[in-house]
Amino acid sequence: MDRESLLRGLSVETESRMLLVVLDGLGGLPGEGGETELEVAHTPNMDRLARRSALGLTYPVSYGITPGSGPAHLALFGYDPLRYEIGRGVLENLGLDVELQKGDVAIRGNFCTVEERKGQLVVMDRRAGRIPTEKNRELCVRLQEAIGEIQDVEVLFTPGMEHRFALRLRGEGLCGCIADTDPQHEGVEPYPPVATCQEGERTVQVVEELLTRVREVLSKEERANFVLLRGFSEVPHIPSMEELFKLKAGAIATYPMYRGLARLVGMEVLSIGGMELEQEVETLERHWDKYTFFYFHVKKTDSYGEDGNFPAKVGVIEEFDEMLPRILALKPDVLVITGDHSTPALLKGHSWHPNPFLLSSPYVRRMPHQAFSERACAEGCLGRFPAMEALPLMMAHALKLRKFGA
Amino acid sequence: MDRESLLRGLSVETESRMLLVVLDGLGGLPGEGGETELEVAHTPNMDRLARRSALGLTYPVSYGITPGSGPAHLALFGYDPLRYEIGRGVLENLGLDVELQKGDVAIRGNFCTVEERKGQLVVMDRRAGRIPTEKNRELCVRLQEAIGEIQDVEVLFTPGMEHRFALRLRGEGLCGCIADTDPQHEGVEPYPPVATCQEGERTVQVVEELLTRVREVLSKEERANFVLLRGFSEVPHIPSMEELFKLKAGAIATYPMYRGLARLVGMEVLSIGGMELEQEVETLERHWDKYTFFYFHVKKTDSYGEDGNFPAKVGVIEEFDEMLPRILALKPDVLVITGDHSTPALLKGHSWHPNPFLLSSPYVRRMPHQAFSERACAEGCLGRFPAMEALPLMMAHALKLRKFGA
Repeated sequence: MDRESLLRGLSVETESRMLLVVLDGLGGLPGEGGETELEVAHTPNMDRLARRSALGLTYPVSYGITPGSGPAHLALFGYDPLRYEIGRGVLENLGLDVELQKGDVAIRGNFCTVEERKGQLVVMDRRAGRIPTEKNRELCVRLQEAIGEIQDVEVLFTPGMEHRFALRLRGEGLCGCIADTDPQHEGVEPYPPVATCQEGERTVQVVEELLTRVREVLSKEERANFVLLRGFSEVPHIPSMEELFKLKAGAIATYPMYRGLARLVGMEVLSIGGMELEQEVETLERHWDKYTFFYFHVKKTDSYGEDGNFPAKVGVIEEFDEMLPRILALKPDVLVITGDHSTPALLKGHSWHPNPFLLSSPYVRRMPHQAFSERACAEGCLGRFPAMEALPLMMAHALKLRKFGA
Repeated sequence: MDRESLLRGLSVETESRMLLVVLDGLGGLPGEGGETELEVAHTPNMDRLARRSALGLTYPVSYGITPGSGPAHLALFGYDPLRYEIGRGVLENLGLDVELQKGDVAIRGNFCTVEERKGQLVVMDRRAGRIPTEKNRELCVRLQEAIGEIQDVEVLFTPGMEHRFALRLRGEGLCGCIADTDPQHEGVEPYPPVATCQEGERTVQVVEELLTRVREVLSKEERANFVLLRGFSEVPHIPSMEELFKLKAGAIATYPMYRGLARLVGMEVLSIGGMELEQEVETLERHWDKYTFFYFHVKKTDSYGEDGNFPAKVGVIEEFDEMLPRILALKPDVLVITGDHSTPALLKGHSWHPNPFLLSSPYVRRMPHQAFSERACAEGCLGRFPAMEALPLMMAHALKLRKFGA
């Protein structure tokens, strides 16, 4: 029996409520004082919670593998990240609240600056001087008006931040097996769209015409006078959390990509009044009765880790700790606090190090004297386990999994 | 996506240098004082290194499985030891420095004593009274001169120790699926060679003629008047470390079998001036600039473990510890010190106990107050993991693996 059939067969719908808090990029590495960001942070509430919780470490994909946000989150939602791969174009569209269906081709685009030299286009700036987001929106409106359809394929442009946009192609017989047109370097021609499988020919024709027409619309622009496309992909078929785990799942995340990932597994994405942590907590409080599973995402731990800003990452952890009493006041039956991947300030990027993991429930074994830290998690009673097993563990502690076998 | 495709896709070639030190059979069991060989050994250099390293325990194959040197080493080189099986005949030939190619059939042989009774051969001594190695060499020369080729198949006899020799068959259409002719008991007939798959018929014919001619050559011998064959096998197709991990790999090992195993995964085997540890270290120093991965093998920990000689095994560990500063002076980006399997003096043989594992790199989490010992490794931040994941972990710490997914 495979893992999904096992879980699907055993999961039951109950009233118990589970909360998965993801402090993005939480795990760290020792700084100058020999302690990690989480160890340095003053976190009296999490430390108190840790003393009556089960701790452990999770690895998102496998030993030594540094995951992107897509596979890292899929794992936390209970899915095998090597089974379901999410393309970059899909992620970009989802992140901009674009609805995707089976068969759509999703693409990530950049506005860029090109020059015509001897009849050839040469990329001068891959990011069009990072044009303002306002300008991006204006250009996407113009492109949308001029190019709504190509060869019976519906085209949707959606502006992102600065020079970034998302493109969705919807129509019969499309295929995501197209190589990037972004040459990744300046001073060279953009690549033509090329199919990487047998079924890609029609899509290549559509994209070729699209690029010709985009160039016509933008040719008078000073900076954003062309586009580069990459991450052509289709939505993988993923069973929803409702289908697989019988959960009514709600997502609280301020950044579009994470809302998109949540939507991909069938979560309802809740609207938040703003970008602040406090507003996320308010949203959680407001919807507490409506869902049996909440995904609660805190982005800035990762952002500061990526910046190499150790003290600022410590600050975000402390900010979350101050909010924890309000979350505990909701009395979740199971509460997990963890990261999706590590983002040590020392490495200024995602890393392969396992994630600190805390599971609070009345049904846990505990180790004495523990705080919430990488070290305590390394000694925790849950040991090290694949991140995709976090959700089954939560389900078990919420008494949402029946016995296997008699 | 399978593990090898994942690793192959993510690995990048960089200048960083990794060193894998294998103290063969390092792991032990408590002696009379309650401490293992590694715990008793005075190892100030390894203990100091342990305080800034990540520790853990690896299991070579699976829980409770005692590995031979072949699977244990394949795992350490990053390969799934259950996917690539190395036959005993292959190992025996490699151990005697015989070069093997794809398609060769490799066999392990014993000289034995037989008697003719009513036209049948009966095995009287499976080891021909453990004839001296000198005698073995002389017999192999005679056999080689008499039987260089059979039915267009090239035959190579290589003497081992006492009654043991290796046999290599090279030619078209051969197959390693042949059952042992060694009946494992005395007082019975040798088994005839029998194919265990459809493709083995030609090889059976070759081996039948080989045995007839061997008997003719040896019939006048008093003790070694026939041979028993076992471990018929072919070289598995293993992608090289260069192919899979983009590593330029060099091997430093004094014993032929380990050099053979290294060659099997595409390492270059470096010549060493002699059998001493100091000469291995000199070899490492001399070649340090030429490779991005070094496999450094120390044999005697295992040999003394097999002898049940606890203090002598302790001595070898201490001898290595004294050499460690010279190794550290090379400033490897990642250094691992571990065993391939445990060889507790108490058991006088390989065992299933997991291997102490130390990984030194600037990018590790540490646990306080640790030394290099089985106990500290059991509490180490790397936990317990399959030995085949050691290489991906080394790659990650050497920043040789790209991010998976976006």
